[in-house]
Amino acid sequence: MDGMIRCSANYVPLSPISFLERSAIVYRDRLSIVYGNVRYTWRQTLERCTKLACSITQLGISRGDVVAVLAPNIPAMYELHFAVPMSGAVLCTLNIRHDSAMVSVLLKHSEAKFFFVDHQFLHIAQGAIDILSKTRVDVPLIVLIPESDQPTYNSNYNIDSFINFEYENLIDKGRLEFEVRRPKDELDPISLNYTSGTTSSPKGVVYSHRGAFLNSLATVLLNEMSSMPVYLWSVPMFHCNGWCLTWGVAAQGGTNVCLRNVTAKSIFDNVSQHKVTHMGGAPTVLNMIINAPTGDQRPLPNKVMVMTGAAPPPPEVLYKMERLGFNVVHSYGLTETYGPGTVCFWKPEWDSLPRDAQAKIKSRQGVHHLGLEELDIKDPLTMKSVPPDAKTIGEVMFRGNTVMNGYLKDLKATKEVFKGGWFRSGDLGVKHPDGYIELKDRSKDIIISGGENISTIEVEAVLFSHPAVLEAAVVGRPDDYWGETPCAFVKLKEGYSATVEDIIQFCRNRLPHYMAPTTVVFEDLPKTSTGKTQKYVLREKAKAMGSLSKKTSRL
Amino acid sequence: MDGMIRCSANYVPLSPISFLERSAIVYRDRLSIVYGNVRYTWRQTLERCTKLACSITQLGISRGDVVAVLAPNIPAMYELHFAVPMSGAVLCTLNIRHDSAMVSVLLKHSEAKFFFVDHQFLHIAQGAIDILSKTRVDVPLIVLIPESDQPTYNSNYNIDSFINFEYENLIDKGRLEFEVRRPKDELDPISLNYTSGTTSSPKGVVYSHRGAFLNSLATVLLNEMSSMPVYLWSVPMFHCNGWCLTWGVAAQGGTNVCLRNVTAKSIFDNVSQHKVTHMGGAPTVLNMIINAPTGDQRPLPNKVMVMTGAAPPPPEVLYKMERLGFNVVHSYGLTETYGPGTVCFWKPEWDSLPRDAQAKIKSRQGVHHLGLEELDIKDPLTMKSVPPDAKTIGEVMFRGNTVMNGYLKDLKATKEVFKGGWFRSGDLGVKHPDGYIELKDRSKDIIISGGENISTIEVEAVLFSHPAVLEAAVVGRPDDYWGETPCAFVKLKEGYSATVEDIIQFCRNRLPHYMAPTTVVFEDLPKTSTGKTQKYVLREKAKAMGSLSKKTSRL
Repeated sequence: MDGMIRCSANYVPLSPISFLERSAIVYRDRLSIVYGNVRYTWRQTLERCTKLACSITQLGISRGDVVAVLAPNIPAMYELHFAVPMSGAVLCTLNIRHDSAMVSVLLKHSEAKFFFVDHQFLHIAQGAIDILSKTRVDVPLIVLIPESDQPTYNSNYNIDSFINFEYENLIDKGRLEFEVRRPKDELDPISLNYTSGTTSSPKGVVYSHRGAFLNSLATVLLNEMSSMPVYLWSVPMFHCNGWCLTWGVAAQGGTNVCLRNVTAKSIFDNVSQHKVTHMGGAPTVLNMIINAPTGDQRPLPNKVMVMTGAAPPPPEVLYKMERLGFNVVHSYGLTETYGPGTVCFWKPEWDSLPRDAQAKIKSRQGVHHLGLEELDIKDPLTMKSVPPDAKTIGEVMFRGNTVMNGYLKDLKATKEVFKGGWFRSGDLGVKHPDGYIELKDRSKDIIISGGENISTIEVEAVLFSHPAVLEAAVVGRPDDYWGETPCAFVKLKEGYSATVEDIIQFCRNRLPHYMAPTTVVFEDLPKTSTGKTQKYVLREKAKAMGSLSKKTSRL
Repeated sequence: MDGMIRCSANYVPLSPISFLERSAIVYRDRLSIVYGNVRYTWRQTLERCTKLACSITQLGISRGDVVAVLAPNIPAMYELHFAVPMSGAVLCTLNIRHDSAMVSVLLKHSEAKFFFVDHQFLHIAQGAIDILSKTRVDVPLIVLIPESDQPTYNSNYNIDSFINFEYENLIDKGRLEFEVRRPKDELDPISLNYTSGTTSSPKGVVYSHRGAFLNSLATVLLNEMSSMPVYLWSVPMFHCNGWCLTWGVAAQGGTNVCLRNVTAKSIFDNVSQHKVTHMGGAPTVLNMIINAPTGDQRPLPNKVMVMTGAAPPPPEVLYKMERLGFNVVHSYGLTETYGPGTVCFWKPEWDSLPRDAQAKIKSRQGVHHLGLEELDIKDPLTMKSVPPDAKTIGEVMFRGNTVMNGYLKDLKATKEVFKGGWFRSGDLGVKHPDGYIELKDRSKDIIISGGENISTIEVEAVLFSHPAVLEAAVVGRPDDYWGETPCAFVKLKEGYSATVEDIIQFCRNRLPHYMAPTTVVFEDLPKTSTGKTQKYVLREKAKAMGSLSKKTSRL
C-alpha cells in the first residue's frame, strides 16, 4: 500500500526492557522489590538496572556477550534480568544446585564474560573457576553479590584470589544517563537457559526479546494477573527466567517478594505479611505447603493464585491446596517454550462437578496460551494429529512465537527438534474431545509391558491418593518375560507406615492389574532443583535390580 | 549465536486471526455473539468467518485488496473483522453517519473491491454507487447484510439493480477446509480507518496485523479484562475497529453483545440481561446514561467497567457514572494510535481524595499502555520534552508498535506526522509531576486571547458543572481587540433553563475572567458519529458572528 513508512515512530523491537521503563513511570513509587528489610520502588529499580548496565558496558560487555549468574531469588537476581539485556548482553542463569564441575562446563560452553555470584555460592564458583583456569579457558570476571542488607565487602571472602568486582559497587559507579542498548532485532537473544537435566546432557536454550515479551504477557493473562499483583518468588528465577514472570511482574507493576530459601514457613509468612496475590511452584512446593506443620501455617489474607507446572499435580495435592484457600492454575511447558505454554483453563461449568472429577480435569495440561500459535498431539513419524479420543497417544508438539530460537552451538539438535516445522517436546500425551491435552509420559518414561503402554503418570496418581504416600515415582524394571514391569519408588509421610503388599494391593484395586507396580521401594526420591524427579536415576536403579521373574502374575 | 533457526516452529507473524483460532478451541462452546435472538459460539464464529473468507476469495479477493463495510454493531460487522483479514484482504469500516457523497469518495479512494452493506443503509450505498457509476470508477461488488434473524432475500430490496450477493448466502457457499491466508509479514495491513472527521478532509489510516495484535492485548490489560468478559458494543466498531476490542474480546473468549441502536434503555436492558462486565463510550454515551429517564434505568448486576475516550470526560459526568455503579476508565488515543494509547491508570492512594479531586485526576489522559513505547509532551519545533510542571503546554507525541503504518496514498502526510521519529498527535497538553499527561486542546482548538492560551477543555469542564447544562463546547470568536474570545455553545437539559448572563457569571466565578465565555449560544451541538463535537462547524458559526467589540471587559 502506498503512503506507508516504517520508522521509530511506529516500529520498536519488542523487548521486556520496555516493561521496566514503563513501570518506572506508571508505577514509579510503588514497591518493585521486597526482601527482608530491603525495599525498592519501580523508579529505583530502573535506576539501579540502568547504572548496572552502564557499568558492565564500560567494563567491556558487547552485544551478544553472555553474563552468567549463580544466585537464589534475591533482589540482584531480579535486577540482572533487566540490567544484562539493557547492556545488550545475554543473561545465563545457572541452577544453584549445580556443583563446580557442572558450573565450569556451562561457563565454558556459554563463554560467559561476567559471572555474578551470590555470597552463599562463592565456593561453587571458586571451584568452577579453578577448573577453568587449569584448562586455559578464558575465565569470566567475577562479581560478588553480598547479602542485600549488608552491601559491603566482607573480609571473609578471599577477594584477592578470584573476585573482581562487588555488586553494589558496580551499581554505584554506573551513570543514569547511560543509553540503554535496545535489541537491534527483536529476535536477538535475551537469555540462555540450560535445561535442568532430567537427562544428563544439558542444552543451552536461547530466548529472544520478542519471545520473552510475548510469553510474559501471555503468562500474565493466563494467571489472571491484573495490575499491581504481589508475587512471591517460590519458583526459581533460574528456571525459564522464573517462568517469564521476572519480566511479567514488571509489565503489571507488581511487587516482587524475594525469597532466599523456599520453606513452608517462609511461604506462609510472606503470603501473610505482604498479602501475596500470586505465586508458583512445582508439585514439590505444593507438597511442602499442604504438609506444613500447623505451627508454620498462617491464614491466607486473600485468594492466592498458584501456578504449578513441571510435573502434573496429583489430584490429592490439588484438592488439599484448594481447601487451604489456594487457587491452583495448572500450566505446562518446557524450557524450550519459555516455561508456561499451556494452561488447564478452567470452565465455569466444571465448578459443579464432584471434587474428584474436578481434580482429575485440573491435572490436564490443557490448551495453549495467547503467545503460542498451535498445540497438538501428533504421530512423530507421520506428523498426523491423533484423534481427540482421550486414548490415542502421540507426541506433544508446539508452534509459535514463544518457542526458543534454538540450542546454543548445536544446530543439529535444533534442526532435530524443529523437524517438520513444529517443536517436538518429547512428551507423550492424548487429546480429549474438548481439545484439552493430557500428558501421559515423557517418551522415554513410558513403560511398555507385554506390548501395553503404561503411563507412569497414571500409576503415580493412584500412589499419591494413598494416605501414607508423600511422593512417588514409577519407572520400568526390566523383565525377561514382559519386557518391563512397573517399579514404584515411594517416600512415605512422616509418622506413616505401609508395606510393599499394601501399596501393590491398593494399586491393583484401582488400576488394570497390568498397570499396578510389581516392585515397591521405599526411599527418598532424587530431584532436580526445580522439583522434577530424576527418573533416569531411578531407571538405573531399577535396571540394576534385574528381572523380577518370568512368572510375574499380571492377573 | 550459533545453532539458531527461524522456522514455522518458532516464528509466526503476529495477527488477531490467532485469537479467533485459539478461542474456537479454548472457549469453543461459549457464546461469542449475542444479538436479539441470534446466538453464536466461538466455534461457530470461526466456522462462519472461515466460510466467508473462502467465499470472497473464490470471488476474486486478493491479498491487500480492500473490503468496505457500512453497518452498525451487528454480528456481521463483528465477523467481518476476522473474515476479511482471513482472506488476506484489508477491512475498511465506514462511518454509518456518512452520506452517499462521502461514501463514494471513500470507496473510490480505498479502491474497495467488495462493499458489505447493512439493509438499513442500502439507500446510502445505492446513492454512492450511482455517483461512482457516473465517474467511470470501478464499482465494488455489493453484499447485502439482511437483519440477522431474517437471513433471506427480501423482495423489498431492489436487488436486480445493484446488489450482487447476500451475506448468509456467501457464508453458506464457503468451505470449512479453506486455508486461511495468514499475513506473510506481520506489518501487512489488516484494516483501513478513515479518520472520522473533526476536520473535513478524511485520511485513510492503515493498521497492521502486528499493531492490531498488540493493541488488542494492551487494551484488554488496561481494561483489567480477565477471561470471558461480557462486552456490550456501545462503541461503534467502525471507530478504530471498536478501539481494537473487536479483536480483544476474541483474545479473551468474551461474549460480544451486539447493538444496532445505542440508547440509554438498550444499554441498561442489555447490561442487566447479559450481565455485561465491560463496555465503552464517548462522553455522549456517558451523558446518555446519567441522564436516562428513571423508567429506562435498571440496577447493574455487577460492577461494569466503562472505557471512555474521544474527549476528556467532564468531572461531573464521571462522578455521576460512578454513583450509578459504573467504573469509568479514561483512555485516550487517536485513530492513528489504533484508538486507545493511554490510560489514566488509577492509583489506590487516590481513593481517599475528595470526590472532586478524584474526578479531576480521572479526566487526565494518563500514561501509555503496554503496546506503546513512549508518550511525551514535546515542543513540536525543538522536539524537547516540556518540564513535568502541569503548566507548560506542548504537543502530545507517541512512539511505538501501536502507531499506524501511515496514511493511504498520502506519503507526504505520513512523513509530516512522523517527522522527528514520533507521531505528532496535533493535541496540546501538559505533563504532571507524576508523569501523567493532561490534554489542554487540539492545537487548532486552543483559543489565543490577548496573547493568553485558553484551553477550551477547561472552560467546558466548568460549563458541565452547571446544573442546567447537558452539553457544551467552546470555540474562539474573532475579536478585533483580543484576537479571539471564548464563545460557548450550550445545550440545556430538558426542563431546565438558564440565561446567557447566568452562564457567563457562573464561569467568571470559577475561572480567571479572561477564560470565561463572552458569548453564549443555546443550541444542539453538531456531532461526529463517535460523539466528538464538530468544532470546525462551531468555529464557522462563531466566525460568522464577527467581532464582539473592542471594549469587551476582561476584568
